[in-house]
Amino acid sequence: MSTQPETLQQRLERLNSALEEGSTGQVRRMLNRGLAAVDVAQLLESTPPREREQLWAMIEPELQGEVLQYLVDDIQTEFLGRMSVEQLLSIARRLDTDDTADLLQRLPNTMIQRVLAAMGTAEREQVERVLAYPEDTAGGLMDTDTITIRPEVTLAVVQRYLRRHERLPESTDTLLVVTRRRELIGHLPLTRLLVSDPDITVREIMETDLVTLTALTPETEVASVFERFDLISAPVLSLDGKLLGRITIDDVVDVIREGAGHTMMSMAGLEDDEDTFAPVLRTGRRRAVWLGINLIAATVVSVAIGFFEDTIQRIAALAVLMPIVSSMGGIGGSQTLTVMIRGIALGHVSRTNLRWLVVRELLAGSLNGVLWACVVAVIAVVRFDDLQLGVIIALAMVINLVTAALVGTLIPVLLKRLSIDPALSGGVLLTTITDVVGFVAFLGLATVFYT
Amino acid sequence: MSTQPETLQQRLERLNSALEEGSTGQVRRMLNRGLAAVDVAQLLESTPPREREQLWAMIEPELQGEVLQYLVDDIQTEFLGRMSVEQLLSIARRLDTDDTADLLQRLPNTMIQRVLAAMGTAEREQVERVLAYPEDTAGGLMDTDTITIRPEVTLAVVQRYLRRHERLPESTDTLLVVTRRRELIGHLPLTRLLVSDPDITVREIMETDLVTLTALTPETEVASVFERFDLISAPVLSLDGKLLGRITIDDVVDVIREGAGHTMMSMAGLEDDEDTFAPVLRTGRRRAVWLGINLIAATVVSVAIGFFEDTIQRIAALAVLMPIVSSMGGIGGSQTLTVMIRGIALGHVSRTNLRWLVVRELLAGSLNGVLWACVVAVIAVVRFDDLQLGVIIALAMVINLVTAALVGTLIPVLLKRLSIDPALSGGVLLTTITDVVGFVAFLGLATVFYT
Repeated sequence: MSTQPETLQQRLERLNSALEEGSTGQVRRMLNRGLAAVDVAQLLESTPPREREQLWAMIEPELQGEVLQYLVDDIQTEFLGRMSVEQLLSIARRLDTDDTADLLQRLPNTMIQRVLAAMGTAEREQVERVLAYPEDTAGGLMDTDTITIRPEVTLAVVQRYLRRHERLPESTDTLLVVTRRRELIGHLPLTRLLVSDPDITVREIMETDLVTLTALTPETEVASVFERFDLISAPVLSLDGKLLGRITIDDVVDVIREGAGHTMMSMAGLEDDEDTFAPVLRTGRRRAVWLGINLIAATVVSVAIGFFEDTIQRIAALAVLMPIVSSMGGIGGSQTLTVMIRGIALGHVSRTNLRWLVVRELLAGSLNGVLWACVVAVIAVVRFDDLQLGVIIALAMVINLVTAALVGTLIPVLLKRLSIDPALSGGVLLTTITDVVGFVAFLGLATVFYT
Repeated sequence: MSTQPETLQQRLERLNSALEEGSTGQVRRMLNRGLAAVDVAQLLESTPPREREQLWAMIEPELQGEVLQYLVDDIQTEFLGRMSVEQLLSIARRLDTDDTADLLQRLPNTMIQRVLAAMGTAEREQVERVLAYPEDTAGGLMDTDTITIRPEVTLAVVQRYLRRHERLPESTDTLLVVTRRRELIGHLPLTRLLVSDPDITVREIMETDLVTLTALTPETEVASVFERFDLISAPVLSLDGKLLGRITIDDVVDVIREGAGHTMMSMAGLEDDEDTFAPVLRTGRRRAVWLGINLIAATVVSVAIGFFEDTIQRIAALAVLMPIVSSMGGIGGSQTLTVMIRGIALGHVSRTNLRWLVVRELLAGSLNGVLWACVVAVIAVVRFDDLQLGVIIALAMVINLVTAALVGTLIPVLLKRLSIDPALSGGVLLTTITDVVGFVAFLGLATVFYT
């Protein structure tokens, strides 16, 4: 009867306890019959490399293909890289064209050619049609198994035609109406087919205001079109207007989820499609690059402080308070930066409203600058019994929070214009600037005041 | 014929140029006829408050309801707050039950009661059935207009029954099969209805392995179920197993998008459903709280440095190099933290594999610690011509990067166990710890070595 879906956690725990008890038979049964392919993938993604190998070996070859398509790129590449052409072929035979093409793209070019060469002509041509387009475009996402009908037939004929199928392609919500030359002229939603008089023709009731994608539409644009029009599927056309295939919502959901996660991971200098359980060396190597970039930034900041070594030597209290100025600037700037990155991603920011945003951020930054400058000044005066020090840190705070607001607003816009991902490099750039400005303002004012 | 969808940017620019030319007539036409409701919402979200008011006033009352449901909570609350009961009623009359309930939830309780009291009995009961459940549960997301059929009838009867409808509810992909007591026993996908023999009964071909949600299932769990099973719609049951309604993929897509954006915004201490063009005072007030929390953290760090004021007084070079140690620790820790937050969100992290992750992070942290410690030591020695200083900063770097790895792994797990959002408070907690450990290690070692 009806299934109450188990939570992710429950499923993991059930399998983990079977694993711990060492009951291989039970694990094997769960992997091959007890769990859906998507859950097996989830389980593999939640397992460290060595145990993952063992689990993978227990999955029956017929099921491996379906499990593979749900795995993150990292793990796909690993498993696929060790397969023979025969194994790859038998996996391809069980998948949709678009899923096969997705998996093939993880392989080196020579291997792709060998697998394609071993396929039947019809199958190869279908896969090649998808492979012809970059993975992150509508063409790379599309499926080629569409049901098309002709405009001049009646709905009764359409129904008889459908009954000749054993099943319709997954997520079929509408039938595409094409001319003899595969030019798309409309579509007939199943819900409309079912409520209409069987004697009228397709042309009379088909919907003609359809939203189409071209094969080279970028996947982020595809996702935004699906969201705007609440679509379940959308047809993909070639550049000369011929119907190539269709994209379904399940593939788009993946794009939407990955897109949002991408920004978050980028902000920490990470790849979005990374294996959570990547081995030490791969993890270490990938992170080293980001730490290196950051070291350059930190060295710049350190050089800026170096100009004021004499002042610090005389008043060590400055070194004690320094981090407060820079940290408040960094936090204020990051908030502005995050709001801007989100605003750009949502398409809210344009040439015309940028000035309004800069002014808003400058005003909000000034308000918070003055507020927290007063608080920090009081802390400094109480702690070091030095009124001048309070004035200096208050001024530095205001300068730094206003700079942070300005820089946080403009950096993402400038990076975007230079076609650099603002989420990736915006943070390092911002904190380098706020650190330098904060330290120079604070230590520079101190040098002036105390001499 | 077919529509090539305009990009977000193009639509905005077209309207902006009409606005700039001051051609109110043209703007009014675009708002009320030229653009889809979702595009008008996008446009309002991309406009500063004053111009937004003007645009809103130009939208015909009949369209306002549809536009409203696409706006972020902030703006919904603003517009709805100024409407009369009559205006709210006329908006409710044009929307689905779930969308009406969504909008009503933005209003104060007394206003909700006044609107409900003014509704017809049938309408009120439907809306109240959705309002009974929290906004972020399956019950709060569901729609109550479902098509149900009985198991004993033939498909031909089903088809005749459907033809009595003028149209089927949006995103209907399957018909729900219920008993006389509204107990759900299966479902009949439209795609299966269309390929099957009209003379067999529903019971013979309905699918019985259906995935159901209960009204109190949290929306994040709803999203994960839709993703796992590639669903277009799913039925929602009451706690005693009666059919209440169904959830469709378009509402789930919103949950998925918001969920991923939520983590990113939380990491900067921001609300995820915020108006990009919120006015200065609201923006300033919301950010002040986060800056205040950060000031407490920065003060703790400053107190830690304070213990070494004498050492800094003697060797000002320490103050110059200090930020390098803390910044590298902060970056290393943030990378670990982000990987863990994502791993937890994806359900990859559990009691059993946590130890593996801690060990992996400690090893990767050590490797990078040693690598960058050497580089920084060379920089320090070259710059200050002091071998001892190089050794001290190298040791402090290794200590701080290893600590960052350990803390970055454990903080999100601990916060999660305490039911605190790791994305919100993890970053401040982490950098406070890495700053304190970095400064104490560096300045402490220096105090020991130089005395």
